[in-house]
Amino acid sequence: MTSSAGTSLLRRTVETYWAAADARDWAAVEAALAEDVVYDLPQTRERIAGRAAFLRFNQEYPGDWRLRIVRIVAEGDQVVTWTHFTVGLEEMYGIAFFTGDAAGRITSQTDFWPESYEPPAGREHLVERY
Amino acid sequence: MTSSAGTSLLRRTVETYWAAADARDWAAVEAALAEDVVYDLPQTRERIAGRAAFLRFNQEYPGDWRLRIVRIVAEGDQVVTWTHFTVGLEEMYGIAFFTGDAAGRITSQTDFWPESYEPPAGREHLVERY
Repeated sequence: MTSSAGTSLLRRTVETYWAAADARDWAAVEAALAEDVVYDLPQTRERIAGRAAFLRFNQEYPGDWRLRIVRIVAEGDQVVTWTHFTVGLEEMYGIAFFTGDAAGRITSQTDFWPESYEPPAGREHLVERY
Repeated sequence: MTSSAGTSLLRRTVETYWAAADARDWAAVEAALAEDVVYDLPQTRERIAGRAAFLRFNQEYPGDWRLRIVRIVAEGDQVVTWTHFTVGLEEMYGIAFFTGDAAGRITSQTDFWPESYEPPAGREHLVERY
């Protein structure tokens, strides 16, 4: 398989995966995942190993969350997405680093959930707020 | 310019840019940036417009910060980096989404700074902590 074929394969999988998660189409979510997929949350130092556990984690995740992809960058067996989540009136961004196998299935997803914070003092002369 | 030439160009710029920032080589940092570069921090809703202001922001950033690239993903005129920063004994991750111009200079950088947090209850049956 050429590198560019690999790129489009995992990109397509990730796009399908996010659309399926948003639609609660769990069969399609499952099909996007390799059996030995590892889900990693560096901020909480949590790890979920295996498709069955990770699928259940997604199914049990509370709240009526909806998502859309803001940006996607794919190269070889890696894909990064910047997603926008809403849960009711709450909004947040998620960043996910994916790796894939030769069949284009997701072998790992590492998630970051950055939260809003107040800017530190001392740089008001350089920044504008929006 | 082909897409793959564009890819390697901006990737090389971003690698040079991070190495130069780590080394406080401000001339090399400046050379990596387009004049109209925009720096964006969605978490604080801060924006810095223009190379001069953004360079100064970096130069004035407090602390003896050091960085290394954990992962880099490049496609066309987009690059994403996951970096690991240390400031003394403090450690943190940064995620940066870059776009570039035809000359391979950085036209935008959007930064996320995810912080550690305690995992919510209710998923202990699926996760392991590390």
